[in-house]
Amino acid sequence: MPTQELPIGVFDSGVGGLTVVRALREALPNEDILYLGDTARVPYGTRSSATVERYAQRVAGHLVRRGIKALVVGCNTATTYALDGLRTVGTQRGIPVIGVIEPGVDAALAVTGGHVGVIGTEGTIRGGAYSNLLKARNPDLTVSTAACPLFVSLAEEGWVDDDIARAVAARYLSPFAGGPDTLILGCTHYPLLFDAIAHALPGVHLVDSATSTAQTVVRALSEQGLLKQQGVGTTRYLVTDNERRFRDTGLRFLGTTPQPTELIDLDDVDQAAWAAEVAS
Amino acid sequence: MPTQELPIGVFDSGVGGLTVVRALREALPNEDILYLGDTARVPYGTRSSATVERYAQRVAGHLVRRGIKALVVGCNTATTYALDGLRTVGTQRGIPVIGVIEPGVDAALAVTGGHVGVIGTEGTIRGGAYSNLLKARNPDLTVSTAACPLFVSLAEEGWVDDDIARAVAARYLSPFAGGPDTLILGCTHYPLLFDAIAHALPGVHLVDSATSTAQTVVRALSEQGLLKQQGVGTTRYLVTDNERRFRDTGLRFLGTTPQPTELIDLDDVDQAAWAAEVAS
Repeated sequence: MPTQELPIGVFDSGVGGLTVVRALREALPNEDILYLGDTARVPYGTRSSATVERYAQRVAGHLVRRGIKALVVGCNTATTYALDGLRTVGTQRGIPVIGVIEPGVDAALAVTGGHVGVIGTEGTIRGGAYSNLLKARNPDLTVSTAACPLFVSLAEEGWVDDDIARAVAARYLSPFAGGPDTLILGCTHYPLLFDAIAHALPGVHLVDSATSTAQTVVRALSEQGLLKQQGVGTTRYLVTDNERRFRDTGLRFLGTTPQPTELIDLDDVDQAAWAAEVAS
Repeated sequence: MPTQELPIGVFDSGVGGLTVVRALREALPNEDILYLGDTARVPYGTRSSATVERYAQRVAGHLVRRGIKALVVGCNTATTYALDGLRTVGTQRGIPVIGVIEPGVDAALAVTGGHVGVIGTEGTIRGGAYSNLLKARNPDLTVSTAACPLFVSLAEEGWVDDDIARAVAARYLSPFAGGPDTLILGCTHYPLLFDAIAHALPGVHLVDSATSTAQTVVRALSEQGLLKQQGVGTTRYLVTDNERRFRDTGLRFLGTTPQPTELIDLDDVDQAAWAAEVAS
């Protein structure tokens, strides 16, 4: 069973989950964080559900074997397709597993007047996890959704609030004009485009799930007596490819360069090991 | 050793290589083509050289075991990092291995007045294969390069000649104003953006390597007596993930829907097999 001294594990397909790490660092300054960016297989957003689930299980298995006290799925597409399976295995081991979708839904429900919009990757929107959960919580809600694939490239290129970012946001979001009063940024890349999105939809509440996800982690650790009470937390970064690019691009997401990084290979061993854990 | 009746193998990280298939279909209507899009690991353009080489070897190994008479690397990043290794193994088996870079260089040298520009993915530009080959052929040449990562997303989204595509092209290509007289489109996605690129650089020769690559394949097969002289060629498509998305996006690259498709899994077996071939 996990102990207070273990780090919190966080993973994403690449750099997007660093927006969640940033919120965790602010909410939990005592905690150690072990981040894994699956940069050899990024992006997850255009892949099939089966492939996303397989990749997420491989990554989660690696973190669990390293030793973590909680697992944060810092990727909306992975949360959409893999959260249930990861939670089943985590719960057996006393490890809380937290995704980014439920916290985002709760935050949106707290402010909406009745119409919520959701934007995300192709995979997240196709999977329907946001719509299903919003409707389950409030059947009277109107929900509108849109995939905005170019937002990821813009965020990684650093073109986040210029004429091109605004033109792309206007094109994706024009169907939402006069619609949702609240918009969930359902991809951990999208907070970087906050200003361009706000410009396209003036007056609409924008919900970034990073902060509410961090609050959910605080509650989960507290309930299980796993909060670390003292010390200054450290953060380490595991990547499956291209450390240099991870550090360069990650700077924009974390606000500081993500380091130290360590290159790891998950190509076959870890998948088999996680499958064995699931079967055990 | 290969026979005339075997198909030509073509691979790319995803749909981009379909621009090469299109040119091959026109140049070689009798030939069968077996295409492999590594959609479980796309894109190659942001990955490290070691990872691109590993992925390319895995894919090539699968095609060789299925039986092909020539191997076309329909991806600039894979050509940059993996061509030499693939050629060594192919040559031992009598299978010509053709990349997209040398044909593009030859086509550019045939028209340039002395200054060639090259645009491509981060990996292709960082690898320097175009610059090295251009300079080796003509040391007096001036060569300018730029990575244009957003072009891939625009091509896949189908936003290829509108205000956004033109604004992106203008931003990437403005450093080339008054520079190159010839520009190599060093990524198999970029021919879709031909008009937007031409608009940003009026009067500059744009070189799409698909056609010259097809001519190189004709020569290589002819020299080895491997041309198929009759019959109507068929094309089949192997993908490692998300067949539906491959067909939908591929339509824009091929001009017709790429089908029939077959989903294959290359996760570990094939890599080991190719390594064994290399060692044998």
